[in-house]
Amino acid sequence: MKSFSYHNPVRILFGDKQKYIANILKADEHFKILLVYGKNSIKKSGLYDEICKVLNDAGIEFIEHGEVSSNPTLSHAKEGVQKAKDVTAILAVGGGSVIDESKAIAAAAASKYDVWELYEGKKPTDALDLYVILTVSATGSEMNSGSVLTNEETKEKLSFGSPLIYPKVSIINPSLSVTLPKEYLVYSAVDIIAHVLEVYFTAEEHSKLLNRFCENIIKSVIKTTEKLLENPNDINARSEFALCATWALNGLTSLGVGSYSFPNHMIEHSLSALYNVPHGAGLAVVLPAWLKWFYANTKNPQVERFAKKIFSQKSAEGGIDAFKKWLKKIGAPITLENLGIKSDEIEKIAENVDLVSYKWELKHEYPLKTIKKILKLAK
Amino acid sequence: MKSFSYHNPVRILFGDKQKYIANILKADEHFKILLVYGKNSIKKSGLYDEICKVLNDAGIEFIEHGEVSSNPTLSHAKEGVQKAKDVTAILAVGGGSVIDESKAIAAAAASKYDVWELYEGKKPTDALDLYVILTVSATGSEMNSGSVLTNEETKEKLSFGSPLIYPKVSIINPSLSVTLPKEYLVYSAVDIIAHVLEVYFTAEEHSKLLNRFCENIIKSVIKTTEKLLENPNDINARSEFALCATWALNGLTSLGVGSYSFPNHMIEHSLSALYNVPHGAGLAVVLPAWLKWFYANTKNPQVERFAKKIFSQKSAEGGIDAFKKWLKKIGAPITLENLGIKSDEIEKIAENVDLVSYKWELKHEYPLKTIKKILKLAK
Repeated sequence: MKSFSYHNPVRILFGDKQKYIANILKADEHFKILLVYGKNSIKKSGLYDEICKVLNDAGIEFIEHGEVSSNPTLSHAKEGVQKAKDVTAILAVGGGSVIDESKAIAAAAASKYDVWELYEGKKPTDALDLYVILTVSATGSEMNSGSVLTNEETKEKLSFGSPLIYPKVSIINPSLSVTLPKEYLVYSAVDIIAHVLEVYFTAEEHSKLLNRFCENIIKSVIKTTEKLLENPNDINARSEFALCATWALNGLTSLGVGSYSFPNHMIEHSLSALYNVPHGAGLAVVLPAWLKWFYANTKNPQVERFAKKIFSQKSAEGGIDAFKKWLKKIGAPITLENLGIKSDEIEKIAENVDLVSYKWELKHEYPLKTIKKILKLAK
Repeated sequence: MKSFSYHNPVRILFGDKQKYIANILKADEHFKILLVYGKNSIKKSGLYDEICKVLNDAGIEFIEHGEVSSNPTLSHAKEGVQKAKDVTAILAVGGGSVIDESKAIAAAAASKYDVWELYEGKKPTDALDLYVILTVSATGSEMNSGSVLTNEETKEKLSFGSPLIYPKVSIINPSLSVTLPKEYLVYSAVDIIAHVLEVYFTAEEHSKLLNRFCENIIKSVIKTTEKLLENPNDINARSEFALCATWALNGLTSLGVGSYSFPNHMIEHSLSALYNVPHGAGLAVVLPAWLKWFYANTKNPQVERFAKKIFSQKSAEGGIDAFKKWLKKIGAPITLENLGIKSDEIEKIAENVDLVSYKWELKHEYPLKTIKKILKLAK
């Protein structure tokens, strides 16, 4: 195992606890906040009314910043920063997109930077306190220090990280996601699995302990996704699924593994940036293609292990195939065509990836021709 | 899954990082500290000299509080509180005993309580900042908020917990434990496995995700213990072992499992309190006996699962037997006799347990006659 440093200060409140949010904010001396949320779902579900009532009853003033899109955008985050001028905290009610845009606003408002400077590498000097009520378990953003945003003008989808943007408190109430459309459950499942697999396959060093930890999460996601597709009201399955999402990207999967990278995320981000496809849908297309290319080029035994442990397959190729079949079975797109992207777009996508690969520290490992090769496997 | 709240603020620095301790203390504005350590081992290994030099070079004044015993005592902790009067932080260099006594001193000194009041239920109002350099991976105290202390006069070994006593920073350098005598490696292994099993068997609710998480730790401890008994210099095994120890009692194994208890620890504490046996040695004797009693009385399917997953045994009894054999194989004591305790002491031990079982909230579940029955199985 490699040396590491680990510190995750997020307080997780798991269960039906959104009613406590006003007291939590007041205990931390926040009386004027920015309330960030997405499109319609929390209004339809009644959660919006519930939160407004809790805040109003407690005398907490709030400025609203709704309409965050599923691939949150720079222009919308900038509007949020304007509104955040005289608040002391942000309450994000939603999934990963709402949290990520909230993190951008929190850091930009307190650091007095232009939002995009953060994604271009400027380190925030401060951030507003961030609180989360999670409605979609997928990105793990509720318990990590990263944020992803899309610059619609330059068509770049980039990320930044800082210990300053860890949420103070994240309330994870699995029953809030019962009304999530099935296709978003599927995209979420793929996102969680992708988070685990990026580390599992690209880590510098592997230990059985961490391998099994990763496989445990993947097995649970596979099982609970199948259960939830059959019965969206299975709260036990939803809870286990939610904990997997949080564990998959809160730092635990990468303890002692040394360096690792996110090539699938890098490639997918260009699909989201160019065609606004849901992140998990894009990942379902990229992952099997990347995995095929990766094994062909590295013969990495982790792929054989994955095949055996997750899909009981004797060969790596059999495992990749079984993975693709499972993705298809749960209704995920598995080709660019499934996403409505023609194969003559591959050049353009690859160039978009190439434009940002230095940011992922993958410029050397993924030259343009390699990216094209992977994308061709995803046709 | 049950609802839960999770917050673990400890910063873990894993690897050869003890040299950074002075800068860490200074960054937190600590210039006069209490240095707590055990008997001779850190002096023999050179770690004591290394730490003193690092502190001296940085101009950090330190008062020494050495000679902490392996079952730390109330009288010694009280001396520590006297010495801690004008320090702002504590640096614990050692294993679980040193950390636990340091936690007692940290809370008692800052809360102005008598030490024992904390173990009798009084909640600390404050605590000195605590920093740890871990030399023995076993108790998990480096990443949790609990402390165990023995009152030599009353022969009570009790625990208390408070978020105030989480270490600020714990440096875990697995190579510092290379010189640990083999029997202490064995006791450590048993302690780690016991921490996992208490939750695994007594939890109100089980999920496959958490079950597999627990089994993963146990499997790694079994494997790495065997490796380290053969080759104490296997740093990879030692690192994996260390991470298991930390994971076993930092809250992760019990997420969403509802209530659970520590009956084996309760019974073992009386062995330590009365005969000063090492905690892990006592646990090795209590665990198989308790497990036999537990399965006979509850037919809890977790025991069958344990037998199957850990020891590939078809029956619960076969699993318990295999567990006992494995303990014997690694050189752990498995009977009271092995500990040098005669069977006519059982009455006295049971009464000592009965005296404190209310503190463990196990008075009802473990009446005197049950405790005697379990102890008889350990003859």
